[in-house]
Amino acid sequence: MTKFSVERVLNRRFEPVEHHYSRKDTALYALGVGLGETPTDPRQLRFVYEHRMLALPTMAVVLATPGFWLQDKALGVKWENVLHGEQGFELHDVVPVEGAVIGTTKVHDVLDRGAEKGAFIYSSNELREASTGRKIATLTSTEVCKSNGGFGGRADGAPSPHPIPIRAADAVWDYTTEARAALIYRLSGDYNPLHVDPEIARVAGFESPILQGLCTFGIAGHALLREACDYDPTRLTAMKARFSAPVYPGETIRTEMWRNGSTVSFRSSVRDRGIVVLDNGKATVKPSLST
Amino acid sequence: MTKFSVERVLNRRFEPVEHHYSRKDTALYALGVGLGETPTDPRQLRFVYEHRMLALPTMAVVLATPGFWLQDKALGVKWENVLHGEQGFELHDVVPVEGAVIGTTKVHDVLDRGAEKGAFIYSSNELREASTGRKIATLTSTEVCKSNGGFGGRADGAPSPHPIPIRAADAVWDYTTEARAALIYRLSGDYNPLHVDPEIARVAGFESPILQGLCTFGIAGHALLREACDYDPTRLTAMKARFSAPVYPGETIRTEMWRNGSTVSFRSSVRDRGIVVLDNGKATVKPSLST
Repeated sequence: MTKFSVERVLNRRFEPVEHHYSRKDTALYALGVGLGETPTDPRQLRFVYEHRMLALPTMAVVLATPGFWLQDKALGVKWENVLHGEQGFELHDVVPVEGAVIGTTKVHDVLDRGAEKGAFIYSSNELREASTGRKIATLTSTEVCKSNGGFGGRADGAPSPHPIPIRAADAVWDYTTEARAALIYRLSGDYNPLHVDPEIARVAGFESPILQGLCTFGIAGHALLREACDYDPTRLTAMKARFSAPVYPGETIRTEMWRNGSTVSFRSSVRDRGIVVLDNGKATVKPSLST
Repeated sequence: MTKFSVERVLNRRFEPVEHHYSRKDTALYALGVGLGETPTDPRQLRFVYEHRMLALPTMAVVLATPGFWLQDKALGVKWENVLHGEQGFELHDVVPVEGAVIGTTKVHDVLDRGAEKGAFIYSSNELREASTGRKIATLTSTEVCKSNGGFGGRADGAPSPHPIPIRAADAVWDYTTEARAALIYRLSGDYNPLHVDPEIARVAGFESPILQGLCTFGIAGHALLREACDYDPTRLTAMKARFSAPVYPGETIRTEMWRNGSTVSFRSSVRDRGIVVLDNGKATVKPSLST
């Protein structure tokens, strides 16, 4: 196997990815993160029904992705041991309900957190509308290469995790995922068999297929949209969080939220197992124009 | 409004419809009729997971459809009062999991069942694989034009409905539909707002959006596949039934089945409301090769 090359990772070039999608895909993404769970709520229906349709802010994270590029053999990454560590987005404009976007990925930094924690790779993907060049979103992602730490690189320089307040949350939303949640979510482009195949999940050390981390992220986005934005997607302009443990389909995810001006801190947990699944969450919420 | 013209209906020409679809669409259709409800059942996973994938026999009914052609003004049909009366299919080969099929629709007969019952229009759609011309399925459909009966036409000649045995069923399967069932199913191509928009459902005389009739049909197909075919889709070669009442998402559908050689009679009901929703069902099931 090729030796891990921090230079090759830092200098990797990415072809722009053009992603065409339809209102059907937009509805499918929203169904994947639990919209429509109250089918009579007209605010939820706008995300799953093509009439006067809206796109979820979190849908940006599944558009024009570069794919699992760490499998590129030239990089020397033991990709089987890569975890998705953090995900964020900042929206510069509303996410279109249909059309084509172009994503351009760059690697920004690689940190050496030692043989125990691994190599941390920080990258971003800038999304632009294909037809107009209009900038839509900047996505940020941290990949944790568990088996590639200790290569003799710099350890510090990571952004410090957003602190969660100690006080009781200002809002809490419990959402019970469906047994089929991972099966629906995967059709938005995450075809990793870990989320569907019981045998592959067992080999990876899980008792059954786990929910996609980005599905949990989308459910937290749903919580923020519901509790802090009255389902107005133009108000949720940024979100970032750290993946701390997997969720199993069927479990209830509790998302706690703390308001402080335009910043909403959040954290998601599976209370039945007493674990935090999404930590150090920070969202930016614009005030309502109508109040 | 144009007067109802039985000649124009009988002589209507249909352009062949070419339908391209992917494994994602095949999985989405299967999710729409409840496959994966036991996500650990490997027999169900084959219909929702692209690895060693299988297509449901009932998926044929959503492929290369001519659309709601009775809205064609030249025909003089009061389309707002049209109901889907019956649906059937006969498979000549397995339904491909992806690719392109071409559908050719023909009208075969129009019966005048009087001012009370309406005009009954019998049509078929022949599906062929686009690349090879291989014949895949013949779909049959009966549309009931409630407001167009009494035009002075022939009343008899309809195939008599398949009789359901009086004795207790040989197999019964209860399936509880999800609250979001209609929202998922509609992405397989039935964009009638009646199944999603509470206001439109109310105007049409329903207390809330109703499940698509073809979704109920697909759930009955799931019941047959499960109880009579051990989830082997090559064994379910034909199915026909009559729509007798709508289902509301969230309700439990009981499908009863009676075996008689290669014929399986079936009927689906919502027991909580004491009504039959799919009646006079007849399926053809081939014996298992492995027994």
